[in-house]
Amino acid sequence: MHGHDALSFLLALATLLGVARLLGELARAVGLPLVVGELLTGILLGPTVLKRLFPAAQTWLFPTGTAADMLSGYTTFSVVLLLVVAGLEIDLGVVRRRGRSALTVAALGIAMPLVGGLVLGFAVPDSVLGATQNRTLFALFMGVALSISALPVIAKTLLDLGLFKTDVGLLVMTVAMLDDLVGWMAFSILLGPMRGGRVEVAILVRTIVLAATFALVCLFPGRRLVDWVLGALERSPDHAPGRILSFVAVLAMLGASFTQAIGIHAVLGGFIVGAMVGDSKRLRERTRLTIHQFVTNIFAPVFFASVALRVDFVKSFDLVLCVVVFVVATLAKLVGCAGGARLTGLGWRESLAVGFGLNARGAMEIILAILAREAKLIDDRVFVALVTMAVGTSLLAGPMMKRLLYAPKLDSNAMLDDAARLVNDGAFIPSLKATTSAHAIEELGRALTETIGELVEPALISVLERELDAPTGLGDDVAIPHAAVEGLARPVVALGLSRAGVDFDAPDGRPARIVFLLLLPPKAYENEIRVLAALARSVFDAAARESLLRAQTLEDAVHSLEEHGRRIRDRVPRTRSLADL
Amino acid sequence: MHGHDALSFLLALATLLGVARLLGELARAVGLPLVVGELLTGILLGPTVLKRLFPAAQTWLFPTGTAADMLSGYTTFSVVLLLVVAGLEIDLGVVRRRGRSALTVAALGIAMPLVGGLVLGFAVPDSVLGATQNRTLFALFMGVALSISALPVIAKTLLDLGLFKTDVGLLVMTVAMLDDLVGWMAFSILLGPMRGGRVEVAILVRTIVLAATFALVCLFPGRRLVDWVLGALERSPDHAPGRILSFVAVLAMLGASFTQAIGIHAVLGGFIVGAMVGDSKRLRERTRLTIHQFVTNIFAPVFFASVALRVDFVKSFDLVLCVVVFVVATLAKLVGCAGGARLTGLGWRESLAVGFGLNARGAMEIILAILAREAKLIDDRVFVALVTMAVGTSLLAGPMMKRLLYAPKLDSNAMLDDAARLVNDGAFIPSLKATTSAHAIEELGRALTETIGELVEPALISVLERELDAPTGLGDDVAIPHAAVEGLARPVVALGLSRAGVDFDAPDGRPARIVFLLLLPPKAYENEIRVLAALARSVFDAAARESLLRAQTLEDAVHSLEEHGRRIRDRVPRTRSLADL
Repeated sequence: MHGHDALSFLLALATLLGVARLLGELARAVGLPLVVGELLTGILLGPTVLKRLFPAAQTWLFPTGTAADMLSGYTTFSVVLLLVVAGLEIDLGVVRRRGRSALTVAALGIAMPLVGGLVLGFAVPDSVLGATQNRTLFALFMGVALSISALPVIAKTLLDLGLFKTDVGLLVMTVAMLDDLVGWMAFSILLGPMRGGRVEVAILVRTIVLAATFALVCLFPGRRLVDWVLGALERSPDHAPGRILSFVAVLAMLGASFTQAIGIHAVLGGFIVGAMVGDSKRLRERTRLTIHQFVTNIFAPVFFASVALRVDFVKSFDLVLCVVVFVVATLAKLVGCAGGARLTGLGWRESLAVGFGLNARGAMEIILAILAREAKLIDDRVFVALVTMAVGTSLLAGPMMKRLLYAPKLDSNAMLDDAARLVNDGAFIPSLKATTSAHAIEELGRALTETIGELVEPALISVLERELDAPTGLGDDVAIPHAAVEGLARPVVALGLSRAGVDFDAPDGRPARIVFLLLLPPKAYENEIRVLAALARSVFDAAARESLLRAQTLEDAVHSLEEHGRRIRDRVPRTRSLADL
Repeated sequence: MHGHDALSFLLALATLLGVARLLGELARAVGLPLVVGELLTGILLGPTVLKRLFPAAQTWLFPTGTAADMLSGYTTFSVVLLLVVAGLEIDLGVVRRRGRSALTVAALGIAMPLVGGLVLGFAVPDSVLGATQNRTLFALFMGVALSISALPVIAKTLLDLGLFKTDVGLLVMTVAMLDDLVGWMAFSILLGPMRGGRVEVAILVRTIVLAATFALVCLFPGRRLVDWVLGALERSPDHAPGRILSFVAVLAMLGASFTQAIGIHAVLGGFIVGAMVGDSKRLRERTRLTIHQFVTNIFAPVFFASVALRVDFVKSFDLVLCVVVFVVATLAKLVGCAGGARLTGLGWRESLAVGFGLNARGAMEIILAILAREAKLIDDRVFVALVTMAVGTSLLAGPMMKRLLYAPKLDSNAMLDDAARLVNDGAFIPSLKATTSAHAIEELGRALTETIGELVEPALISVLERELDAPTGLGDDVAIPHAAVEGLARPVVALGLSRAGVDFDAPDGRPARIVFLLLLPPKAYENEIRVLAALARSVFDAAARESLLRAQTLEDAVHSLEEHGRRIRDRVPRTRSLADL
């Protein structure tokens, strides 16, 4: 460590991280994604602004040479960890269980953007092609780039709309996972021959075989091995979280080294390792959170901020290109995903909502664009267009889904939107005896015997199966186990409160103290979404939950729900989704 | 990011982290400090072993050039964060409150090693001096190097021996903090002129003034400012931990840049920022833990492993020098600290225990040695000798303190060592009403009215004051509030159980469910230590605690304590301290 280089490195790091976090928070405050603020940092501190105004200061703050290499060590580590975090979101269990209908949507959701990308690739003038001037590669890349989805953005949007655990929500998540798996594989494979600038069939085949083998080995025997190792590490109570953290980091770096060595990009290794590790039930929420926090707050901002340090966004901004890329990307995803969803039996509103949800590209697209630019496959104009498209599609997702799924005319049917009335017509248990989610479901189900008679047994079976499929803890102390029940004419709810809380595997790791058991008539996706959202909204704020938790009788509970219902009736939940990665 | 360099970097990182964590855990398993395994990694993979056996493989795995610079970006970031974590351990409140007696010990604990270092510095042959060949600087550095203490090692040792919250324990901790503050300041100031190889008075004065100003500004107005900012960040419930993480990282990098820029080393900035931030009560235990986990498991191992990558430990091992440094270091610290402790009124056994505790140098000494070697102030032989001394003194601390404080002959007084008898002669509350530590203390104190009569009031005041001074939550659900009470002839205990738990600010953040109120005759340090240890040991294992928590009557409680007392009577608590940083 030489004094001067260390100083440059530390100062550049402090500046990038500090400004990126500040601008990120500002962006979030005005409803933009965090990543927009982080990218803006590079625009301000890079050639676009600072270098124009104070070239000497810019060169002093971000020198080339050793200090730049030190910084690139940091950003390399960052991007691999970023993809590990992305991989951690993949839940192979859900993909397996929800596979059939998801496959249709995913296949169309990849095929249509691929077509769009190819069209785009062959329509653009030569001047837009990257340094390689290889139109086939460029078109293929654009196809892959348009097919990617932003799993974290989608997950957050669904959570905020109260749709995360609905069938529509699960479908969207599963499709996004499949899209991401296929997209990153395809992209990584393209990067190999890309580097040379020509597609050599032999190299391409070798790369595909190696990448596929790597992914299969990791995701099947590797996943079981990791699960076993994590189990062994967990059993040693001392220092287990620390050991697991090291284990994940080493695996990620090894995976990244391997994929880099076989000629595909390091990020694929990180991504696959993330998926391999994240699937293990033994990876505790706490460990996941620790990794996530460090990556989001210490590594990712510097990575995104450093991007625009080397690109002049003003000079490279091509309005026509930006609009074309945005329109093609959105149309292709909408046609593919909404069409696929319609084929699986969803209504057109739900299908379009699925399309807009999956249209969000988020930070993943930006990472892809950065790597493609580094590989000289795209020039700065296409890069800027892809970044703009990523931000734009992410911004569009929440409001469009909200508009489609919470359309005003549907709200006229007051009964469905009224949590209080549903509970009043259903059942209420002020203090659940159950300590597990299965027992809580049974206890609530039995309480509905008067209401639904002999449908209780089949209803319980459906709900328990649905719960096994994907647990329904929403976080914030609330869980809504639910299922469609053959023979039911209208939605039925039983509400139970639990002082000690019952674990419903919520994303925030907290046990549920408010449990709504919801039974729905079959094939009523619209109802499902709206009733679920109504229930979730009725306990949206902490005050409403605290008031409800004090209820001792059905009257108390109904009264509490009515009171808070009135207050929020006309408010649609704010989407925080856009504010995140 | 160029493909080949990225690969080299990622592979080197994976190898260093993986091997260092493996060897670290192995070292821990055989009772050695973690850092020994991490250092061994560099020895195995560096010039000492791998380069001797397979020079080509070594150069391939750890190339020079860009990849090496990328790795050095990672290790630079690591060492700054390492010092932040060290700084976080500094509790300025304790230093202020415990200042008087601690100052004596700290002053002597710095003066004696300084004398020892100077003697050593002027006695060694020319050949041992570093490249600068400046004997004055070398002697000053050795003085500073011998005066440093390893706060984390000391804290862990005290925790394991059940002494952390005793007066002896607090004294040792406070002295270690003072030693560290002074030592790191002095070392950083020395590094400035060191670089030139000559001591220029003007530069030295400038450096001292700047460093002192920096430290004072950070630790007084800065500390309050940080506290205010953390408070503001805490109040925004969304994403607060993430924001605080970023804030701490940016502050650390800025502090490090500043100290580096004014000609002292970056690590001082990290250390001072750590102390400034760590003192804030608003820094939640969770955030502290997240930082600590990432540093210990992702950053520190690579830093320590990369050290020996550039040093040939076999060629540079000078047995005579190692022994001399070890002996001088130990003698100087023992004379200084044990002497100082004796002056403040401790018995000789306790004083010697204080001396051995503060003699532990741990990883801090190793960091110091690394930086001095990089500044070319010491050569590889002195470097190896300092590392050996650091490991040796850390290994010695636990066993020596144990031997001195738990001497068998003292155990003959069975009464004192018998938690069961103490509780039997005292009081028992099976279910505390109190929900705060102050109320719990009062409740337990009132229960002793029959036993100690009118001493209850003064006793309560002493215990409450003592609790304010430093909370007595030991962790693992146990708290032992205690104080010396004028007029008391023998130790008196009241035991209270609490289902909900009472917060005694334990290091593990968990509320206490088992609370021993312990009143002691004044000036009985030996008793204090032994009774406290006896109480702590009586609930050492989880089974003992669970059995005790089921007690409904005094008889149940005494029976439970007796039963588990028999089982562990002859076991002395195992020190885990040595196994950590």
